[in-house]
Amino acid sequence: MATARIEALTDGVYAIAMTLLVLNLGVPEVPHRSADLVAALSQMQDLFIDYIISFLLLAVFLTVHHRHFHVIRQTDARLLWINFFTLLFVVLIPFSTELFGAYRDVAAAAIFFELNIFAIGALKYLQWAYVTHNHRLVDRNLHPEKIALGRRINLVAPVVSLAAIGLAFFVPDQSTIVFITIPIFITWLRRRAPVSSTCA
Amino acid sequence: MATARIEALTDGVYAIAMTLLVLNLGVPEVPHRSADLVAALSQMQDLFIDYIISFLLLAVFLTVHHRHFHVIRQTDARLLWINFFTLLFVVLIPFSTELFGAYRDVAAAAIFFELNIFAIGALKYLQWAYVTHNHRLVDRNLHPEKIALGRRINLVAPVVSLAAIGLAFFVPDQSTIVFITIPIFITWLRRRAPVSSTCA
Amino acid sequence: MATARIEALTDGVYAIAMTLLVLNLGVPEVPHRSADLVAALSQMQDLFIDYIISFLLLAVFLTVHHRHFHVIRQTDARLLWINFFTLLFVVLIPFSTELFGAYRDVAAAAIFFELNIFAIGALKYLQWAYVTHNHRLVDRNLHPEKIALGRRINLVAPVVSLAAIGLAFFVPDQSTIVFITIPIFITWLRRRAPVSSTCA
Amino acid sequence: MATARIEALTDGVYAIAMTLLVLNLGVPEVPHRSADLVAALSQMQDLFIDYIISFLLLAVFLTVHHRHFHVIRQTDARLLWINFFTLLFVVLIPFSTELFGAYRDVAAAAIFFELNIFAIGALKYLQWAYVTHNHRLVDRNLHPEKIALGRRINLVAPVVSLAAIGLAFFVPDQSTIVFITIPIFITWLRRRAPVSSTCA
Repeated sequence: MATARIEALTDGVYAIAMTLLVLNLGVPEVPHRSADLVAALSQMQDLFIDYIISFLLLAVFLTVHHRHFHVIRQTDARLLWINFFTLLFVVLIPFSTELFGAYRDVAAAAIFFELNIFAIGALKYLQWAYVTHNHRLVDRNLHPEKIALGRRINLVAPVVSLAAIGLAFFVPDQSTIVFITIPIFITWLRRRAPVSSTCA
Repeated sequence: MATARIEALTDGVYAIAMTLLVLNLGVPEVPHRSADLVAALSQMQDLFIDYIISFLLLAVFLTVHHRHFHVIRQTDARLLWINFFTLLFVVLIPFSTELFGAYRDVAAAAIFFELNIFAIGALKYLQWAYVTHNHRLVDRNLHPEKIALGRRINLVAPVVSLAAIGLAFFVPDQSTIVFITIPIFITWLRRRAPVSSTCA
Repeated sequence: MATARIEALTDGVYAIAMTLLVLNLGVPEVPHRSADLVAALSQMQDLFIDYIISFLLLAVFLTVHHRHFHVIRQTDARLLWINFFTLLFVVLIPFSTELFGAYRDVAAAAIFFELNIFAIGALKYLQWAYVTHNHRLVDRNLHPEKIALGRRINLVAPVVSLAAIGLAFFVPDQSTIVFITIPIFITWLRRRAPVSSTCA
Repeated sequence: MATARIEALTDGVYAIAMTLLVLNLGVPEVPHRSADLVAALSQMQDLFIDYIISFLLLAVFLTVHHRHFHVIRQTDARLLWINFFTLLFVVLIPFSTELFGAYRDVAAAAIFFELNIFAIGALKYLQWAYVTHNHRLVDRNLHPEKIALGRRINLVAPVVSLAAIGLAFFVPDQSTIVFITIPIFITWLRRRAPVSSTCA
């Protein structure tokens, strides 16, 4: 399977998963008055935040995927299956998001969502480790510093997910908010890197 | 992330959002007689009009997106995130359309839909301003007249949205009809431009 | 908008509309015994036939679309909008199919579905007439015989739809079956053509 | 229709069918306590396994599709329609999966799902036999050993499906588990092949 086909399938699955998130937002049923509708929409505020967090996390992961495939020169069966298993968890995100939205005060629901993010992040880390090991499938001129930088960047999502899981035991409904630190950490890692990060 | 990948993701998200609009059209429940079914479908007339308006607005925005990327030569992280935030609001359109369809006599519902269109239009304007500033990411030969024309074209949707919001305070159910002026204004701006608008 | 982008968007919308058809097939609720489930699935036979007809009609139209764009060399705003209006009716197919499935004994439901097919077919005919008029947007070497053949092929769907509508006044539930003649007529027209039809 | 267009449509339909599988996973309704939610999610265990099996089977079939088109050099109307009929059954997978999930103790439901997999596998076999017969549509240098290997690989899914159907008469709820042998058999066939299997 050519890298172009893996990329097309991956883009498609991410696009659909990101769009299906909107199905979690149900139109409220209230009397036909502006005040009631505004109140009902305000109560949906948390659902909108969930939607934004899930959408942006998928956007971050897709960006990471694109960065990986920017330097991947060949594929093999193992890379293909790492990618399929990642997509399996990507597709699960609309369900996890809905579950958390329905039971945000329950630790188990928050942890389910956070484990889902952890799984995607861990598989991305595994993907990077696999393709860069001895320059197995990447451009042979890829600088070791960039490989190390990519590894650090891919550690961000799993580590933040574990922090969120720890937090979920105490304040489940607020634990997912820590995910907004993922893009911040990634940007920080890139800025302080001694090498240009355009490819890593 | 290469421009081709941003375009593919964007095309995918627009295609899915445009198609999900059909889920708002529920099959009516009436006695099995032609007269009853015709009456029920006639009562759905407003829902069909909502569907057409949302579909065509997304089509207009996608066309604008294509015109932008026709002259964009490189991407950077900021352009990527402007694009993701735009898609976040594109995905919301099926929800906004359904909300307006359920509460078309309520100003808050009409305004919610119109703010959604405003957000997409404003982000497109921001995108154009960002990529063309000092020819930051566009073809360096792009004529200043075309940049100015693109800017005027990208102002149409935000301005019409604000007009619709103003109207929504008085006649919410008829306020969205002003959106059909968007393609008319855009065509008019292109026709009167001193330069060919093929690229702007 | 480049032809490649129109094609990508069109492929995406068709793929999603074809896939959403499956949502019309609801899992039946019966006692947990094989005999009951087999009986319930047998009663769904008509829904499966609807699904197959709609799926294959969309496949035929997509094939026609590909044949058109195989010879189209440029696009303009009018072609773009003919294409968008076609997609508007393509997206409506899952709704029309569901409506017909719910009211197959009612003439209005059958006619709604058949008008939907008619609209897609008529817009495809219009598209072909528009792009081939004085070789406006097609390869200038395209043989007049092929243009005429394409015109005849594009007349099949509208004509068969009108026949189905006529039939719907008498036997609505059986009127959609005439659509299976569309691929047969198209194949027959191609075979008897004096020119190779690879491009028309 | 160019091979690239068939591939794009196929990738799109598979991506959407794989993503729609998540709609079968409904959020449970329980009291807002962690213990109750964990218990409810545990009871959904079988639904998650169904989801994983269907997702991975579609992934296997898509990989096979890519391998076929890697050596297919031209298309014709028959190949196009074999592909459309395959997609018709691919789109049915979310329905079959949901049916099996609702009636896993009923032989008819398991057999319905397994016939669906059988149909996809048999059509893939037919596709390979069609395109390779006298090197009809494939690269003329494709080695006969590779054609034979491709044929054996394409027999795996139909044969395993028949075994699952046989098993469904006795233990319907456990019969789908045999599908996990498909990737194992395919990998084994490739490893023992005298020729490199990169293209078959």
